[in-house]
Amino acid sequence: MQKSLIRIPNPPHILSSAAVVGQKEAEGPLGAAFDLHSADDRFGMDTWEKAESEMQRIAFGVMLKKAGLREENVDAIFAGDLLNQCTGSSFGLLDYRIPYFGLYGACSTMAESMTLAALTVGYGIFGVTAAVCSSHFCSAERQFRFPIEYGGQRPPTAQWTVTGAGAALLSAEGVGPYVTEVLPGISVEKGISDANNMGAAMAPAAVDTLTRYFAASGRKPDDFDAILTGDLGAEGHGITLDLMRTNGYDLSRVYQDCGLMIYSSSAQDVHAGGSGCGCSGSVICGPVMKRLRSGEWRDILFIGTGALMSPGSVRQGLPIAGIAHLVRITADPAEQKTGEGETV
Amino acid sequence: MQKSLIRIPNPPHILSSAAVVGQKEAEGPLGAAFDLHSADDRFGMDTWEKAESEMQRIAFGVMLKKAGLREENVDAIFAGDLLNQCTGSSFGLLDYRIPYFGLYGACSTMAESMTLAALTVGYGIFGVTAAVCSSHFCSAERQFRFPIEYGGQRPPTAQWTVTGAGAALLSAEGVGPYVTEVLPGISVEKGISDANNMGAAMAPAAVDTLTRYFAASGRKPDDFDAILTGDLGAEGHGITLDLMRTNGYDLSRVYQDCGLMIYSSSAQDVHAGGSGCGCSGSVICGPVMKRLRSGEWRDILFIGTGALMSPGSVRQGLPIAGIAHLVRITADPAEQKTGEGETV
Repeated sequence: MQKSLIRIPNPPHILSSAAVVGQKEAEGPLGAAFDLHSADDRFGMDTWEKAESEMQRIAFGVMLKKAGLREENVDAIFAGDLLNQCTGSSFGLLDYRIPYFGLYGACSTMAESMTLAALTVGYGIFGVTAAVCSSHFCSAERQFRFPIEYGGQRPPTAQWTVTGAGAALLSAEGVGPYVTEVLPGISVEKGISDANNMGAAMAPAAVDTLTRYFAASGRKPDDFDAILTGDLGAEGHGITLDLMRTNGYDLSRVYQDCGLMIYSSSAQDVHAGGSGCGCSGSVICGPVMKRLRSGEWRDILFIGTGALMSPGSVRQGLPIAGIAHLVRITADPAEQKTGEGETV
Repeated sequence: MQKSLIRIPNPPHILSSAAVVGQKEAEGPLGAAFDLHSADDRFGMDTWEKAESEMQRIAFGVMLKKAGLREENVDAIFAGDLLNQCTGSSFGLLDYRIPYFGLYGACSTMAESMTLAALTVGYGIFGVTAAVCSSHFCSAERQFRFPIEYGGQRPPTAQWTVTGAGAALLSAEGVGPYVTEVLPGISVEKGISDANNMGAAMAPAAVDTLTRYFAASGRKPDDFDAILTGDLGAEGHGITLDLMRTNGYDLSRVYQDCGLMIYSSSAQDVHAGGSGCGCSGSVICGPVMKRLRSGEWRDILFIGTGALMSPGSVRQGLPIAGIAHLVRITADPAEQKTGEGETV
């Protein structure tokens, strides 16, 4: 029998996290909950790709600083991004002398990296690990679509690649929200081949993962304060709601999508919402962690969704497969007590 | 203290493995030890990228068949390749309904995937996992260098991307060579920026990993039947020998490189040797596993080496970082007994 849901025996704490974003994300409804932003999205660099790497480097450094740890305390990094050959991560984290596992999970990378970081700590392989990812609107546009100067029109189903990086530090010891369960994703492909409608391509994978989770865990959607996909956007959010209802699960009271949370649909021109590794990366490592630490949320499911495709595969007529990794994060009552009652 | 060498408490068996290659690799000195090859390198497909995916799909299927297992017996796949957005793996393994972790480790992918496959089994997270990777000469040439039709000249330090895929199945139960230790790699960058001299860029990472291994384990090079890097080629092999001697370790009696083993330097025009995820992937999963199963080798170190760069990063003047993950594989005496004495 294939293993599906994994209950982690010694759930690792998320000691600290950091989210670094661009100007548009800082102007969005979650703006105040990110750690840092760059007003010109350049982070002091002369190319967009270097800016993306620098954003990861900064996020990692802020995360370490918050935990009061140094690079020699970290046993492994799990990191990835959307750039060809994942250079956003490999150059962004090159300064740190830490064992490095490069990942490619498209926009599911925050969940994939958090899954592996949590499993390796929770089963005693490592003591402290980091999960890191990024995307940058300008490096993604010219790689996946058109040079920005071209000014190509976007259909309503298109999503906007978030300029953002997220980093989370997991540890066997300390305080902070726990990663209590994970359910790794299976690639699902339902014949969608429109690269401007990633939400539709990824939604079936989110549905597959969520359905397997509820079946295996015996829980129901309303047991959670929030169920967050990242990043299906408006199109994929609607499809997921519908398909889950068909499968017998009503998500309507608790279901949100990182791609819909990060921008204002009325005030910011982003069509179907945000996307990119940095979307769920920055939303989870910034605002979501803040809510878990404050006690506003006590138990959530994060389902990182990715579209497994490339411009080349689309040109060759291949469909777009989706994948969705689930991570359950539970608040640590000890931390909230500390946060409320004591000076630390 | 950062964790370095990991001794796996319940070393997983490599139940089965498969290596599928192209025509040039089949004509090389290891040709007879691969499972299958395609005489026109197309594997029945109409593009090189689809051919690469098909090669992975076949390797995975042959590996499963040899072990007498089915897809529902496999808990997780760890897989990667060199194509943009790692589509070689995501499309190659899409047919299998198995939880999927996409990796990007450049040419170190076989070692990275085997490390994670071995750790997750060895610590009881999963029961059965697969490590898979591929590269294809024609898909790599047009992505990283020039269209083949252009006929660009290659400098003597250039390596030849192997058309090949490797797949290995790891399990807590059964017989087969064990993965007894792993040492995950740290990115190392020493200022090399010549994309036609990857061996020089990756050798310092191999030296870093090997030096840490010998220091942490207390073993010496001659304790092993073979120390195999993959894939440094002639240039990187020489640099590694020299630098390791400077560090106090004489590898000369046992050190080979997958990139030098796979082609004949006299009869095949490959300059500095083979490279690509599929080089160490096919050499380890084919001929090396055969030697471990037959008892010819009893204990080896495999150090998968990768160059963390992209055509874009080279154009932007960034240097090339290397990474090297170490996997120690020890023969299973029980299997050799079975192999010699009984019909199985």
